[in-house]
Amino acid sequence: MKIVRYNGGHVGISDTCKVVDVSHLCGAGPDEWPPVGINRLIRDFDALRPQLEQLLASEPGVPLESVRLETPVPWPNKLVAYPVNYHDHAREMASRGLANIQGYFLKANSSLVGPADRIELPALSGREIHHECEIALIIGKQGRQIPLERALDHVFGYACLMDMTVRGKEERVFRKSYDTFTPVGPWITTADEVPDPKDIGMKLWVNGQLRQQSNTRDLIVDIANMVAIASSASTLYPGDIIATGTPAGVDKVLAGDEVTIEVEHVGRMSLPVVQGTHGANVVFDKPYEFVRHS
Amino acid sequence: MKIVRYNGGHVGISDTCKVVDVSHLCGAGPDEWPPVGINRLIRDFDALRPQLEQLLASEPGVPLESVRLETPVPWPNKLVAYPVNYHDHAREMASRGLANIQGYFLKANSSLVGPADRIELPALSGREIHHECEIALIIGKQGRQIPLERALDHVFGYACLMDMTVRGKEERVFRKSYDTFTPVGPWITTADEVPDPKDIGMKLWVNGQLRQQSNTRDLIVDIANMVAIASSASTLYPGDIIATGTPAGVDKVLAGDEVTIEVEHVGRMSLPVVQGTHGANVVFDKPYEFVRHS
Repeated sequence: MKIVRYNGGHVGISDTCKVVDVSHLCGAGPDEWPPVGINRLIRDFDALRPQLEQLLASEPGVPLESVRLETPVPWPNKLVAYPVNYHDHAREMASRGLANIQGYFLKANSSLVGPADRIELPALSGREIHHECEIALIIGKQGRQIPLERALDHVFGYACLMDMTVRGKEERVFRKSYDTFTPVGPWITTADEVPDPKDIGMKLWVNGQLRQQSNTRDLIVDIANMVAIASSASTLYPGDIIATGTPAGVDKVLAGDEVTIEVEHVGRMSLPVVQGTHGANVVFDKPYEFVRHS
Repeated sequence: MKIVRYNGGHVGISDTCKVVDVSHLCGAGPDEWPPVGINRLIRDFDALRPQLEQLLASEPGVPLESVRLETPVPWPNKLVAYPVNYHDHAREMASRGLANIQGYFLKANSSLVGPADRIELPALSGREIHHECEIALIIGKQGRQIPLERALDHVFGYACLMDMTVRGKEERVFRKSYDTFTPVGPWITTADEVPDPKDIGMKLWVNGQLRQQSNTRDLIVDIANMVAIASSASTLYPGDIIATGTPAGVDKVLAGDEVTIEVEHVGRMSLPVVQGTHGANVVFDKPYEFVRHS
């Protein structure tokens, strides 16, 4: 099943043809602020599942292509991200700060956007803004110090995620937390539709040219271990998002580009890149030259 | 006015003698999940203020000392933190990663606890856990690229904040995001009760011994500039918390200690330190020796 947010805060379920509104089951809707109804739907999903399956089978809904999709979970407890988690990306960055040595970092919830939104480049001269192709895990069940053998039980589903990044030597969180820097979508695919979390392919194109391609089998810290490690420090809540890291091929995007991401068993989304007017500050007033290693 | 959360999710207003329940004005209460009613109260505060002042003057409420206070904003959009933001702390850490060079990082919302809670040390051998005495800003009004001259208009209030930290070379966010590592409270003091944000004193004691003492006049990036810089990258939302940095004197805490923090115009809170059983992981399996510089 696919879980979507759409048309100004509605929560729906989809089979990728139609969308059935289930906002009333979780208190979601255009008037809800902060928008956390979907967090409740995820928390209650196991109990609601028979009802949801029946609704999806019986209700006419509306065509998926007729709605404006939004980022699935706009206000999680936290948006966790693992640094350098593919060896080929570690090589191109000449980085020794691997995910199993560093632990997680965070991106700001306010950086989340959806598949119908745009990536807005901040007005920073002398800086490259890079795409990073990633798979998002969505946490389903609350837990702390989750044992490895039960870690996958806490994964509610998967989504595409772009981790947009200002290159530089400043704090990683700040370089990655600009508004629009975390497109997630086009929906959440529930975990039962992903046969093997150790074998999920992903690709990213810029203007139709393939830039990144990998598979979760190449992860340094795999999905179950990411859940276990994060939860050893922090209680994970329903709706928490974990960005699982990017493979080699990160590169700059420019205004006018279109970035497309595809995650196997999830789907695909394309976002245009536009030049924004906001974003300058004292932190980024010095230029930085990105050098790719090989 | 003081804004409090208490007794399992109630939201109240206080004059430090009594508490008047205003949960009904913002949809808060024990059944609310996620607990975001207080975010709405903060968003709507200006419009509600006459009504709140009248309630506080006329309602008997309950004695403040009879309630169990909780962390004021448990589920903000983000918990922003500025790194090295006092020169004396930069010297003791031999750090050149000052706040105006690095930008902000984030702590996990799940690390937030309140004045009646405990600081739980993770089960990490060979690691020191340090206290950091800080002042928390609570954002009141949504904004992006907030100009410096209007930045203070976006500050709703102030609170005490302890930024607990595992010392080491791993990702700063991970070292600071353990559950219970961000005590905030005992309440929010609204900004009108703080005469000069450039002159707020703060102190921290361990077992009655003064460990840290400073004043916002010694900040490298001052309060208005912190709001301006963070908002240049990220939309700030009502309820967002900004941890403003710690002065010199950081040091380890041990199980059995009691840590007390006091922020001028806000108040004081004391939390016991206990040894937890959770928290070990592959990231922290190597010991680290903290060396203080002078």
